[in-house]
Parts: sequence; structure tokens; C-alpha cells
Amino acid sequence: MARAKVDSLLVTHLPNVRYLCGFTGSSGVLAVHEGKWLFVTDGRYTSQAKEEVTGASVVISKGAPIIAAAERLSAAGARAVGIEAQHLTVAQRSMLNHALAPARSRETNDIVETLRMVKDAAELAAIRRAVVTGSDLLPVAVRHIKPGAREVDVAAELEYAARRAGAEAMSFETIVASGPRSALPHGRASQSAVPRNGFVVLDFGVILAGYCSDMTRTVHVGRAGREQRRLYDAVLQAQLAAIDAVRPGALVGDVDRAARRVLQRAGYGRYFTHSTGHGVGLEIHEAPRVGRGGNDVLKPGMVITIEPGAYVPGKGGVRIEDMVVVTEHGCEVLTPAGKDLIEI
Amino acid sequence: MARAKVDSLLVTHLPNVRYLCGFTGSSGVLAVHEGKWLFVTDGRYTSQAKEEVTGASVVISKGAPIIAAAERLSAAGARAVGIEAQHLTVAQRSMLNHALAPARSRETNDIVETLRMVKDAAELAAIRRAVVTGSDLLPVAVRHIKPGAREVDVAAELEYAARRAGAEAMSFETIVASGPRSALPHGRASQSAVPRNGFVVLDFGVILAGYCSDMTRTVHVGRAGREQRRLYDAVLQAQLAAIDAVRPGALVGDVDRAARRVLQRAGYGRYFTHSTGHGVGLEIHEAPRVGRGGNDVLKPGMVITIEPGAYVPGKGGVRIEDMVVVTEHGCEVLTPAGKDLIEI
Repeated sequence: MARAKVDSLLVTHLPNVRYLCGFTGSSGVLAVHEGKWLFVTDGRYTSQAKEEVTGASVVISKGAPIIAAAERLSAAGARAVGIEAQHLTVAQRSMLNHALAPARSRETNDIVETLRMVKDAAELAAIRRAVVTGSDLLPVAVRHIKPGAREVDVAAELEYAARRAGAEAMSFETIVASGPRSALPHGRASQSAVPRNGFVVLDFGVILAGYCSDMTRTVHVGRAGREQRRLYDAVLQAQLAAIDAVRPGALVGDVDRAARRVLQRAGYGRYFTHSTGHGVGLEIHEAPRVGRGGNDVLKPGMVITIEPGAYVPGKGGVRIEDMVVVTEHGCEVLTPAGKDLIEI
Repeated sequence: MARAKVDSLLVTHLPNVRYLCGFTGSSGVLAVHEGKWLFVTDGRYTSQAKEEVTGASVVISKGAPIIAAAERLSAAGARAVGIEAQHLTVAQRSMLNHALAPARSRETNDIVETLRMVKDAAELAAIRRAVVTGSDLLPVAVRHIKPGAREVDVAAELEYAARRAGAEAMSFETIVASGPRSALPHGRASQSAVPRNGFVVLDFGVILAGYCSDMTRTVHVGRAGREQRRLYDAVLQAQLAAIDAVRPGALVGDVDRAARRVLQRAGYGRYFTHSTGHGVGLEIHEAPRVGRGGNDVLKPGMVITIEPGAYVPGKGGVRIEDMVVVTEHGCEVLTPAGKDLIEI
């Protein structure tokens, strides 16, 4: 906060609010001023706030919590109030500035996100549980993949098993992309039927105790030809090379380059159209972004995905994704599922 | 746009982008200038954009689509570029202003949202399909509610049936709130077990062809006592009174007041802690908000929920919700499920 030149901070991004004070509802803001923490929510969350919030006094407001918090900050003598510029909307800021006067709002970036990058022991334990629960879903999906099955039906079985295993929700819309659709990096499960021969990309995750898992495996229906095996192996080697590059002190850009180089050498460079990975925690996508030229420095306790892919239009695509945690000397792969090509 | 004093508009809110040009992916902006529409997305969506986008020329950008769109608007001679103030973040606007110079951004509100309030025939058809699919899930949930069953298991069965019926996703996190938890207006399905006697609030919806459904029913496990029946009947009467108030020309505030008055007269006024309803369409919550003092005027084709509730802390709560469409002379209730109290 000192570096951002603010004397107080208004935390409005809900995962940040949850991280700092424990509140899991859908409406609430946290105001920090002179070492005092104030949590403001509305009448729907009176009992929930009392149950969940720690480290902050709780206020139930009649109007918008953000306005009530701003008025209290102003009354408490705040002058430069940091806002979360990446989350607050332009309209919210206009409202806020009015309520804050004579105090002023000042843009801040990533104050809480930076804290969240390094996970503590309790967070890591929650993430491990989510990752194992997620990984156990792969055999369920594989069992239901056969020629003619609709992608949505595979997703239905996977998500049903997730719920039965206690998942609060899926961490994002399940991707089941089969045949030519496997070449769509974001092919959410559709009404399409699994073809007799081709790749099926499965990308899914669960939320347990608020923490997300994320994994991708690509299986092949029918016998994979030489070309398919070559593509699969290139992506797998790229993924292993990126994992090998994960260690404290490394730049995320180096990890991305390790994956990209393998795919380029195999002739698939231009088919790798996204970043190598991203942080995971209370949100499915959080800092750091593991992409080309990324300058974030890896530290022990950071949890990221490693998920290179190659997508050949009209032919098909392959992506392989694990979650890893940075350790003192390298990294540990959290996702237990194997990565040899499964033929169905 | 003329009223907002802008010569061009940058549409960044994805449901608005989808509404205007058909794109369903997760990254893309639409720029409108002098009658020309330009859609910008990134490399992941090359094929999807070609398939889906109508009425706009498609540009694939290397960097952030919003920056590429801004640069083109500026080069095309735009001077006052409308931004969606309720959706654009403060950080995005700062980036944008840099790319727009010498053009400037100007806050606009609800330009596309206002268009979206009134649904056309194709939208209404999609909404009807989603509502019927959603309503058919109620018996599935009821079949799995019994003392000792976990709320998450009831949600699992309901969501599995939704997927099997072709739902792309649930339109929000399924609420199964049993016993004392029924007094939490937003009690997402938890590990709690359904008690021997008490209310269970079921609030859920599906997405079909992009359009959302939303409904709530409250059932009672075991025989409902006199007090429970009184509470249930008051909420039901409030809901019917609000439906009765829905007609072209009425203010949404009048609809809210109709529900609130019934609950106040029955002595439950202070237990009705939220609004009476909201618009539904491509988003689960959209304009208009049907709340206290709301000034939006109802028009034929608008689709809203009617969902009063009363939540007595420690005892339990009841909410009953239908979706209705405003017609030429009143409204049509879209949700087919009955509303007599079900005892399980």
C-alpha cells in the first residue's frame, strides 16, 4: 500500500475479499485503513458474514456495500483510497468517487493478487485435495467415450461424478472436444458425437473448499496413426520440458519458452496458439500468467498449470495439462494421472 | 449513441457482443463506427469467429483485442468513443485511453442492455425451451430429497439430468438449502443433510442455446405445521399478486410493491430481504431489476422473474419463483411447474 501511495485500500474483487477475511458470498467489500479492517455486505448475508468473516468488523448496509464502505473510509479521515483497477468498473469508480469526497480514489494493481500467488500450507492442502478429486474423474470420462457418444453426455458423467465426490462446482465449463473439434483450444462440450477415429481433448476441474483444480488429457478413439502419435509425443515432450524448467528464480517466460521450443523444433510451433500456463488457486486463472516474455519470478509455493497444446485445423489437436507447485529446488507435479496416450 | 454523445461504441461485455454479432467465445470486442461493425478476437478463436460472427468484419489480433479495436477506431477518425462503463474495468480504460488518442473515451450505460430487455421471437423461443427443460428437473430433485440425503447429492442428480437433457451449463450455482439453511436466501448446495422435518428451497436454472432459465420451488420434508403453511401461503399469495401486477406500462417498482404488500400484511415484511425479480436472457441477471422504487416501464417481450421470499432466521425460509413474459395485455407465466406445497 505504501508503494502504491495510498493510505487505505478498498478490496472489491470477491476472491481477494475471501482470501483476506473468509467471506464466500456474492456481495461484500473489505476496507482497510490504519490497520483496521471493515467488511461491508448487504442484508442477504447477515448470518453468513457473522459465521465466516475473521479479522474484520462486519457492517450490514442498506444500500450498495461499496458506497457504505467509502463513506466510512472518508469519515475515518482516509485521503488516498486505493482501488483495484483491474476489477472495479468505470461506473463503480464514478459512484465511488462521489461517496469518497473529499478523499480520492487511486488506481492500484495486483496488491492482493501478489500475496495470493504464493500459497500457504492450508491452501496447498486444499489444492491437493481438489487436484486428486479432479484427477480421479479422468477414468469416468474415458469409460464413457465411444464412437457416437455425445460430448455433452461425457461431460454429464464427469460432472455427476465430481458432484458425488463432493465438488462444490466445476471450476470452469468442461471441455470435451472430439475429432476435428479437438483443434478448437476452447471447445466446450457440444452436441457433437465422438467420431470413430480421432483425438478427444478433456479439460476440466473441480472446486473443493473454494480452491480450483485444472487438468487436460487428450485420448484417441481408435488406433492413432503415425501422424497422430508424432503430434501427441511433441506436445508431451513440450510439457515435460516446461515442467523441467520450473524452479525458484526462473522467469515464467523461460518456462513458456521451454515448451514452445520443443513444439517449434517438431514443426508445430505455429499451432501452439496460447500461453503455457497460469496460476491457480481461489480462481481458475490467477497470477502469474505463464506466457511468452513473462517477467514474473517463480517462488516456492506458487501453483501453476503447464499446458502446452498444438491444434492442426481440420485434423485435430492435443493438449496435456498438469498442475505443479514450485518447491525449494524445482517443482512437484500435483496431478497424479498418467500421460501415456490412451487409445479407446 | 447520439443521446450518449458518442460517434462510435466499443462493446466489450461478452453477452452484449454475442447479442449483436453472435460470437460465443470468451475473448472479443465489437467496435461500431459510422455504420461499420468490426469484431476483433485473438488467435484461439480464428475458426470460431468465422463460423459465428454475422454483420461485422472479423479481425484476428496478436495483442489484446480491445487495443487493436481502439487503434482502428482512432485511425478511422473516431473522436468520442463510447465505452460500457458498467463492464469496462478502470485498468482497461487506462490502457484504452492510451490506444485511442487523440480520440477520447466517454462513459455510456445500458445502450445494448436496453435493446436486450425486449426479446424477439427467436429469443423467446430459446427462453421457452430453457424454461421447460429447467422445469422438468423439479421432479428429479424431489425424487432425491429425503431425510439424510446431502444437499450436494440432490444438486448432483438435478445437474446430471440437466446435462442429459442437453443443457450447456447451469445458469448459476444450484441452490439446495434445507432445514434452517432454507433461511439463507443464497444457500448453495452444501454437505449438509436434509433434516427429518423442514423446508427445502430449490433454486436452479439451465442454459440452452445461450439463454437462461431460472426457477425456485420450496418443498417441505415431513408434514408442514400450521406456521409453515402460513409462511408458504403468504409467499405464494405475494408471488401471485406480483404476477398480477405485470402488464405493459406498469413500473417494475409497482410489481415489487404488490409482492411486498402481501408479505407485510401477513407480518413477514421484514423477512423479505431482496428484490422481487430481475430480467433474464443471455445472462441470468439482466435489466430490468424488479425492486423497490424501480422506474423501468414494462413492455411486451420483456422477460422477468417473480420471486418473493420470506426467511425467518433459525426457522426456515420459502421462495417461489417463475419466469414471466410481458404480453400485450398482461403477462404469461412461462414456468409450467405447479406451486401447491409438496410434502415429502
